[in-house]
Amino acid sequence: MQYKKIDAADIEYIVSVINDKERVFVGEEINEDYSHDELGAVKKMPEIVVKVLETKEVSKIMKYAYEHSIPVTPRGSGTGLVGAAVPIHGGIVIDLSAMNKILEIDEENLTLTVEPGVLLMEILKFVQEHDLFYPPDPGEKTATIGGNINTNAGGMRAVKYGVTRDYVRGLEVVLPNGEILELGGKVVKNSSGYSIKDLIVGSEGTLGIITKAVLRLLPLPKKAVSLLIPFPSLESAIETVPKIIKSKSVPTAIEFMQRSAIVAAEEFLGKKFPDSSSDAYLLLTFDGNSKEEIEANYENVANICLEAGALDVFISDTEERQESIWSARGAFLEAIKASTTEMDEVDVVVPRNKVAEFIKFTHELEKEFNIRIRSFGHAGDGNLHIYILRDALDEETWKKKLLEVMEYMYKRGRELNGQVSGEHGIGFAKRPYLKESLAPELITVMKGIKMAFDPKNILNPGKVCN
Amino acid sequence: MQYKKIDAADIEYIVSVINDKERVFVGEEINEDYSHDELGAVKKMPEIVVKVLETKEVSKIMKYAYEHSIPVTPRGSGTGLVGAAVPIHGGIVIDLSAMNKILEIDEENLTLTVEPGVLLMEILKFVQEHDLFYPPDPGEKTATIGGNINTNAGGMRAVKYGVTRDYVRGLEVVLPNGEILELGGKVVKNSSGYSIKDLIVGSEGTLGIITKAVLRLLPLPKKAVSLLIPFPSLESAIETVPKIIKSKSVPTAIEFMQRSAIVAAEEFLGKKFPDSSSDAYLLLTFDGNSKEEIEANYENVANICLEAGALDVFISDTEERQESIWSARGAFLEAIKASTTEMDEVDVVVPRNKVAEFIKFTHELEKEFNIRIRSFGHAGDGNLHIYILRDALDEETWKKKLLEVMEYMYKRGRELNGQVSGEHGIGFAKRPYLKESLAPELITVMKGIKMAFDPKNILNPGKVCN
Repeated sequence: MQYKKIDAADIEYIVSVINDKERVFVGEEINEDYSHDELGAVKKMPEIVVKVLETKEVSKIMKYAYEHSIPVTPRGSGTGLVGAAVPIHGGIVIDLSAMNKILEIDEENLTLTVEPGVLLMEILKFVQEHDLFYPPDPGEKTATIGGNINTNAGGMRAVKYGVTRDYVRGLEVVLPNGEILELGGKVVKNSSGYSIKDLIVGSEGTLGIITKAVLRLLPLPKKAVSLLIPFPSLESAIETVPKIIKSKSVPTAIEFMQRSAIVAAEEFLGKKFPDSSSDAYLLLTFDGNSKEEIEANYENVANICLEAGALDVFISDTEERQESIWSARGAFLEAIKASTTEMDEVDVVVPRNKVAEFIKFTHELEKEFNIRIRSFGHAGDGNLHIYILRDALDEETWKKKLLEVMEYMYKRGRELNGQVSGEHGIGFAKRPYLKESLAPELITVMKGIKMAFDPKNILNPGKVCN
Repeated sequence: MQYKKIDAADIEYIVSVINDKERVFVGEEINEDYSHDELGAVKKMPEIVVKVLETKEVSKIMKYAYEHSIPVTPRGSGTGLVGAAVPIHGGIVIDLSAMNKILEIDEENLTLTVEPGVLLMEILKFVQEHDLFYPPDPGEKTATIGGNINTNAGGMRAVKYGVTRDYVRGLEVVLPNGEILELGGKVVKNSSGYSIKDLIVGSEGTLGIITKAVLRLLPLPKKAVSLLIPFPSLESAIETVPKIIKSKSVPTAIEFMQRSAIVAAEEFLGKKFPDSSSDAYLLLTFDGNSKEEIEANYENVANICLEAGALDVFISDTEERQESIWSARGAFLEAIKASTTEMDEVDVVVPRNKVAEFIKFTHELEKEFNIRIRSFGHAGDGNLHIYILRDALDEETWKKKLLEVMEYMYKRGRELNGQVSGEHGIGFAKRPYLKESLAPELITVMKGIKMAFDPKNILNPGKVCN
């Protein structure tokens, strides 16, 4: 595909559409941040950045780009980890972060209508003030809701509440050719043709640009309790999780963490974690509407853990104590990042009873390749976050080791009937692993769908299956 | 599209694939039931029916049909209401009802793996014996799970638990060209390319044939209580529902019913309903793990209803009493059908706070057109089931009135930001209304997706967007 380079006429047209020079950036004016995302392994500067405020602007730019075969990459707050928002073919970056209005809360239908640039933390806070609850809870709270929908973000509470997809009722989407589509709405059920909404969710900005979303809300649970449970080893901690699931208790979240991650977070935040004397921990939350309801649930789980060799059970029932634990959990990624020179990540998801086996395997790789590997993640839903750290390795050794270690990890993920990504997406960085993981016929179907939406391949080209 | 007619060579090939003459039916041998579904408004006999037992058989037949441009229509137990399983172009019907094995229950991952022909009632019973729960609960329990996935069936418990889509973790699908795809799996999260699984859910057998499904299970709630609440009028009953939603109580189900439907069910079942003296009722269920948890929830709702003019609140806390109420609710469709000569249905879904307005409108239509209209449905999720009854009308008057009444209903549905179908699907019968309801650009996208899966348009042609 031959893409057109941006020239003076293109810039002039885009400025005329936006009618506000302050929101169009060209050449030297473009902040370097637009060339990469949070992990930064892939970098490329866009030719022009447009900070949009309205769906109409997105539509007009897309229509123009489509006519002229100019690549367009949509971007939220750039907290992605797989390069999905990096304009690898240059062209236009549409920055949606200023489309950040909360448009409506509808308490009779339990929906929230938002623009795509609203930050996750703003949504959580806003709905809580109305005694309502938006359950998806990824660690990165400065991500935009548009980005969360595009990766089908999951987060910690997926064990009980599911993932972002389960909370998207309706979308407004601008197609690659500039057409504006309304998908779904405030309705609870919908069997009216193919679910294009569900195809857009998790499509990483390659099929359309989300310009509005109707989210489903739940009543806010009145109480929550967290349990921090130390174990003598990571294996013994993780092997307890399938027993918890099998016991029919319903925790909101089950996270696992190693001492090294906790210590790194303590240093990073300058705050002490309630306990960091053991090798490994499970961190669980239970929520509900009464103390009794939650207690019945967690007492059962506490006993299962103690029987499985847990060293203790620390119960946090005040908001303050829970906040201190979960803020440390939320800082793991940043803390690990701060502890090394460069890193890359694996976001594999496996069936819940295979987590222990997978983590054990990463420990073997760590020894075999003599490279630092850190992990934490969602033991309760099988989604692992594994970080391979460069530390003092030279460029060549790092690249080589990283590639080999990753190959081994994704291979083992496939053997365990896992998937390449639980919630971070494929973007640019994970494309080779997606292709190895899925049947060629399935990749062909995905390419066919991309063609149906974007025959000129101008919207976020070179990502996911392309 | 010119389709090939079945000839002796085709029959010979199919018999050779199946290697069991008893499972292949041709011409006179074909039961008339294969020409229609539950509502029977559209009829057409297939040229050949194949009762498959294995994925491999489905794959071979599809490969052959694809090569020879023979239309194929997949069928479960034929309980559909929109003609989706009717072979309107003749050709092959693949009957999946004998692929009815429950393959595995995995209590560590809370999944159930089934073949597509397993009946919903068998799943409900089987998982309950393991103290587990498959929440989707459409009235028609003799539907197959394959059919439920293909219409994204919702049912009564959608208020609290969502719809079928929310419980499909993985699928095995045979594509129109005979390729076999594995989608998803036992994993809880998945952001690995476009969600083809979610595209197949609700696609009514037009994109692929589901040959296996991995379903998500929940722990079985330990207790349930039903509330039957009489109101002086249907409007006052339905207008209470948004107040219940707004109160942050979480009922499992909120159904509305009119006296006429109850009386018809009483006659049909030969059993008395606990109360049928009032004009209208709300029927609610609450479930949970303790009496206290449920009580706190329903007492609040009972008070809201009484304040809103409810005449009484009947509480059913024994399994026996609840069974008697819900079996009557389950018989509404059959009872209405038995009360008339012919009927057609509207399965529109509107935002929950628009249900009262819509129902009021159907009452106006009933008077204006002097035609009997009966309704019941899921007040808690905005999905209405409205039946237009022929009674003694002559053919011409019936056709004319039906068309006009339907046009008006779907128009009002659109005005209220509703969708054509909440859970029955589009199939053959609702295609014109889908086309009126959605933007042409959206229909174009759907057609493009169909083309990507099925360029020869041989799989269930003439359905949904085609």
